[in-house]
Amino acid sequence: MDQIKVGVVGATGYAGCEICRIILGHPGAKLAAISSISFEGMAFSEVYPAYYELCDMVCGTQDEVVEKSDVIFAALPHGLSQELAALCDKAGKAFIDMGADFRLESEEEYRQWYGGSYTDQALHEKAVYGLPEFFREKIRGKKLIANPGCYTTAVPLALVPALKNGLIESSGIIADCKSGVTGAGRKPTQSNHYPELNESFTAYKVANHRHTPEIEQTLSILSGEKLKVTFVPHLLPINRGILATCYAKLKPGVTEKQLWDAYHDAYDKEFFVRLLPEGQVANVKNVRCSNFCDVSLFTDPRTGTFVAISALDNMVKGAAGQAVQNMNLSFGLEETTGLRLVPPAF
Amino acid sequence: MDQIKVGVVGATGYAGCEICRIILGHPGAKLAAISSISFEGMAFSEVYPAYYELCDMVCGTQDEVVEKSDVIFAALPHGLSQELAALCDKAGKAFIDMGADFRLESEEEYRQWYGGSYTDQALHEKAVYGLPEFFREKIRGKKLIANPGCYTTAVPLALVPALKNGLIESSGIIADCKSGVTGAGRKPTQSNHYPELNESFTAYKVANHRHTPEIEQTLSILSGEKLKVTFVPHLLPINRGILATCYAKLKPGVTEKQLWDAYHDAYDKEFFVRLLPEGQVANVKNVRCSNFCDVSLFTDPRTGTFVAISALDNMVKGAAGQAVQNMNLSFGLEETTGLRLVPPAF
Amino acid sequence: MDQIKVGVVGATGYAGCEICRIILGHPGAKLAAISSISFEGMAFSEVYPAYYELCDMVCGTQDEVVEKSDVIFAALPHGLSQELAALCDKAGKAFIDMGADFRLESEEEYRQWYGGSYTDQALHEKAVYGLPEFFREKIRGKKLIANPGCYTTAVPLALVPALKNGLIESSGIIADCKSGVTGAGRKPTQSNHYPELNESFTAYKVANHRHTPEIEQTLSILSGEKLKVTFVPHLLPINRGILATCYAKLKPGVTEKQLWDAYHDAYDKEFFVRLLPEGQVANVKNVRCSNFCDVSLFTDPRTGTFVAISALDNMVKGAAGQAVQNMNLSFGLEETTGLRLVPPAF
Amino acid sequence: MDQIKVGVVGATGYAGCEICRIILGHPGAKLAAISSISFEGMAFSEVYPAYYELCDMVCGTQDEVVEKSDVIFAALPHGLSQELAALCDKAGKAFIDMGADFRLESEEEYRQWYGGSYTDQALHEKAVYGLPEFFREKIRGKKLIANPGCYTTAVPLALVPALKNGLIESSGIIADCKSGVTGAGRKPTQSNHYPELNESFTAYKVANHRHTPEIEQTLSILSGEKLKVTFVPHLLPINRGILATCYAKLKPGVTEKQLWDAYHDAYDKEFFVRLLPEGQVANVKNVRCSNFCDVSLFTDPRTGTFVAISALDNMVKGAAGQAVQNMNLSFGLEETTGLRLVPPAF
Repeated sequence: MDQIKVGVVGATGYAGCEICRIILGHPGAKLAAISSISFEGMAFSEVYPAYYELCDMVCGTQDEVVEKSDVIFAALPHGLSQELAALCDKAGKAFIDMGADFRLESEEEYRQWYGGSYTDQALHEKAVYGLPEFFREKIRGKKLIANPGCYTTAVPLALVPALKNGLIESSGIIADCKSGVTGAGRKPTQSNHYPELNESFTAYKVANHRHTPEIEQTLSILSGEKLKVTFVPHLLPINRGILATCYAKLKPGVTEKQLWDAYHDAYDKEFFVRLLPEGQVANVKNVRCSNFCDVSLFTDPRTGTFVAISALDNMVKGAAGQAVQNMNLSFGLEETTGLRLVPPAF
Repeated sequence: MDQIKVGVVGATGYAGCEICRIILGHPGAKLAAISSISFEGMAFSEVYPAYYELCDMVCGTQDEVVEKSDVIFAALPHGLSQELAALCDKAGKAFIDMGADFRLESEEEYRQWYGGSYTDQALHEKAVYGLPEFFREKIRGKKLIANPGCYTTAVPLALVPALKNGLIESSGIIADCKSGVTGAGRKPTQSNHYPELNESFTAYKVANHRHTPEIEQTLSILSGEKLKVTFVPHLLPINRGILATCYAKLKPGVTEKQLWDAYHDAYDKEFFVRLLPEGQVANVKNVRCSNFCDVSLFTDPRTGTFVAISALDNMVKGAAGQAVQNMNLSFGLEETTGLRLVPPAF
Repeated sequence: MDQIKVGVVGATGYAGCEICRIILGHPGAKLAAISSISFEGMAFSEVYPAYYELCDMVCGTQDEVVEKSDVIFAALPHGLSQELAALCDKAGKAFIDMGADFRLESEEEYRQWYGGSYTDQALHEKAVYGLPEFFREKIRGKKLIANPGCYTTAVPLALVPALKNGLIESSGIIADCKSGVTGAGRKPTQSNHYPELNESFTAYKVANHRHTPEIEQTLSILSGEKLKVTFVPHLLPINRGILATCYAKLKPGVTEKQLWDAYHDAYDKEFFVRLLPEGQVANVKNVRCSNFCDVSLFTDPRTGTFVAISALDNMVKGAAGQAVQNMNLSFGLEETTGLRLVPPAF
Repeated sequence: MDQIKVGVVGATGYAGCEICRIILGHPGAKLAAISSISFEGMAFSEVYPAYYELCDMVCGTQDEVVEKSDVIFAALPHGLSQELAALCDKAGKAFIDMGADFRLESEEEYRQWYGGSYTDQALHEKAVYGLPEFFREKIRGKKLIANPGCYTTAVPLALVPALKNGLIESSGIIADCKSGVTGAGRKPTQSNHYPELNESFTAYKVANHRHTPEIEQTLSILSGEKLKVTFVPHLLPINRGILATCYAKLKPGVTEKQLWDAYHDAYDKEFFVRLLPEGQVANVKNVRCSNFCDVSLFTDPRTGTFVAISALDNMVKGAAGQAVQNMNLSFGLEETTGLRLVPPAF
């Protein structure tokens, strides 16, 4: 089979850059075209000198990307993806959206949290939510995929097996999450200026982050119960990684064994989810630059609380890696192709 | 009045070093003697070259410290403080214990979490728990003070006003805390070796940390209800600072105004607790090297959850600064003497 | 004597902020007024939440600062200081310039490296260069002081005693310097965006930095020889600190003893310069947040090379601290007043 | 051809670990056995949890490694490699030494800088020095290879083209180098304890580091002139990377064009050396986790100084990557096999 021709719209943002990094090492795909509004006409390696002599491709326009590619990854500001998705749909191209335009089933929630509306209902019905570990069969062969956000991958991977098997209460769930700085994007801001962020740590958008409805949607679908979570994100002074510390009330009588069994059933065959041995705690360091999500389990018998801690690289399993995983599913490739990335240990 | 003669046992550990830093700038006290088992005979500035020409005092023995000082700060491994406290008691010297030997009222809990026993019951009855914002009147003039731990200062300062005023449920409290590395001490370990910790983030002692009973003791005393908390500490790749993100169920009908009123009542006159304006989040950066504890309040109306976030410097308000605050109370000085430390903004 | 009324123009930049921090703890001075173009009308503590309840003064205009103050510290873009200096001169106010407008004696060099011209020659003749360790007597009582840059303080403090005593060659001097990020200012830029700078290290403006003529001016004046240096600055992924590694050819027959004697003669009475014991190397960590400059000496007998390494905090001895030292000299206070800042050891 | 069976002695040190990481992705080689004295009997992934489910191989003994492997990489303390090399030689196995035992041609220099002696002269005569860009033809097919150190790769790659073509003076060369912390090994030490190193920067072993004679050896061989350099290493608070800022006197009349031509001639065909475009400066960030060495050139016409700045990952091109490059040459594989590692841009 020919290599898949990959296009990246918004290639010079962090997620776009990471898609390029992964595609450079993907045996079944090649970079066909990239675009960037801010850096049009510049070589990718001028923007990211790490890629000098590895990817000197010049940033073109969005139209060129659509024309030259079989699949278009779009890293666009919220609201702009819908138009491009329609264009790709018409041209018969696969479209993988890194933004939030197609993630929420409820237009009302989209409007409430993002402020826009759904311009083309038929298109939204075509879209599938690309969290392969839970929705693999729906994704296969599809051409319009909403790639999940970073927190919204980490929290469900930590909680779903317990929730789905009725081992924890569906109310009172708390997701205390901590993210590396790349999650906030490449555009310089005061709060991410090096001297302000270095040696700092704080929470932001406390119980008020846009990923909340997306997390709730996934947990609700998979538990069969409409539920709500309290979600508080924090900003870590590191480049990459999300650690999600999730708390839930254990249902009466639930044993440790039941919990471990549920997680083994869910993840033993999943290449990208590593259920850690008892006692070990997930650490963002151990998944950096890889597509793994490490999951670790604890209980607090004194208070009857379940604590599930997951770690992933927000730029890989939380963005570009998962997007390529979805591409593999969409095009019928083995799901791990190009994604057996080995995390450096230090 | 003459300057208080200060002695530090275990001066070359991080907490000991920080006591020396504060005493060097304290107008009512002076460093009289220091000891260190590992560095006996060496100058303090040989161990910490930052203090070259500022504190070249030589580390002597514990006995010398007791002899030369009016007040002895002891940063000793758990279990060793009781003996030294007895010695100081006999010699009529004030004793401020940086360790855990005198923190817990219940010997049973001490035995369970620390593994030792109370060797001298009378001495334990003399000891007061040195969290001045809550126990100020008990501390004044006392000569045996158990200085609280870092987490055990941060969590109560975040939760007590809500709890004491009956605004939150006493069950189901979660304290998700994140600490800088100095909290783990100065002794090199594999996990705190620079390349292992840098760009990492994880939890440790999940729902199993020794500070749990101490947090519960303070919250129980002040709420009048025996309660339990789920406490999960994490390790931040920064030097100093603790952020405590605390979750509790709001009682039915409680309003935002009631919450803010309770905190204003509690903290408006406290120099070292800064209740942040609505919308601002406490950040470890803003309290670094100072004795402040910043407290910020949020609610999640969607789930009825109260979120209180506090930040302090684990080495100052979480250790040495609070110890000096206790010394000031013990010796009748104005409580903030030598402690109006201005945090560098970056 | 009354407290000196201090005004800061450009108070919300890093140097301005640090002046405020130092003045907050200065017994002989108090903050009278601050201004900021970007943040006019905002409280200082809104810009820097670390100062909440410590300095809630509102940023006003430059004119208000001049009116209310005895001394004006100006942290302005190059070129704008001359006008303000003239205004202060007319009003009989002391003026301490944090910028470069009055540092260079040669207008030609100023034009070549900064691109502007000297608008008022008489004013330039009044200005003194504020490096107290070398020009103390000229500074005393003066009202127009050019505060040196950071590199231009670190390199002369490392080299002057050897140079002045004829122990090293005046040609072939190399200054390989490394600076923390605050030196680049508070304005967010792509290169100082956290994820780009973290875990990075590089040189910039190689042999082409504006501090070059200022370093050469000081070394030439003090050695009595017109000399040139090769100066290469690098950017460290830390907040504060400059390390200057300076290389020079030893003159034939020069002994270690001659070198050490020259440095002891120069610095034994200087409070802010700490000549480290043989074998110890200056480290930016040991001077952080303080006004110290640590100096360490080495020779390479295999190649006949002298290596002097100095460390200072670019925001303190390299900016705000030295400026206050100059203020003390200008107003006849003891030189170290308010500047006996103890560096935290970690 | 069958895959090369790779053994690593000292696999749990940083260099050993990195060899394992690279071999895991090498299409022509597979990990056959690993040993570790400290962690014998433990799985590699217990020591480095990043490798969980990727490399759970158990650490055995050195003898097992020799028996099961075609090539043995040895990361041993200085002095211990000679014995193992003899054993491998006898058994007909290839041996790639990560240590210094076979790097220096002069036993006298080895004795002077490392304190040991050469136990088997014949073996030392068999050894080749594995810096492929300069000694490729000597390495091909050889079975005893001394892998260079990190600084000793970075400095020659920066200077050799200028030196070999007679464009710079051979005396007065200065190499001011800065290394990430992994260069100091995995064993916890006080100076590399996180809180001591974080936000610090200093030099060490000033003009007295063991890599000095090795740098001089390479430069002398390739320039045809016995020369000496002043070498000062510094420790950066980052995990990986070396930046070598090298200074030399330009010979009279040498033009920029001559310099660039010499470097283009030397490196245009070298996959792993990227000569950066004029004006760009090498940055450790851009080569991290890859086998690249970036080289950038500058001159200071004011002083007649040449400044060459190179950057590499001390663990890859400065250790494990170069070792695998040598293995490829030894076994007749294409030199870049398994080494086209793409550096993450952030």
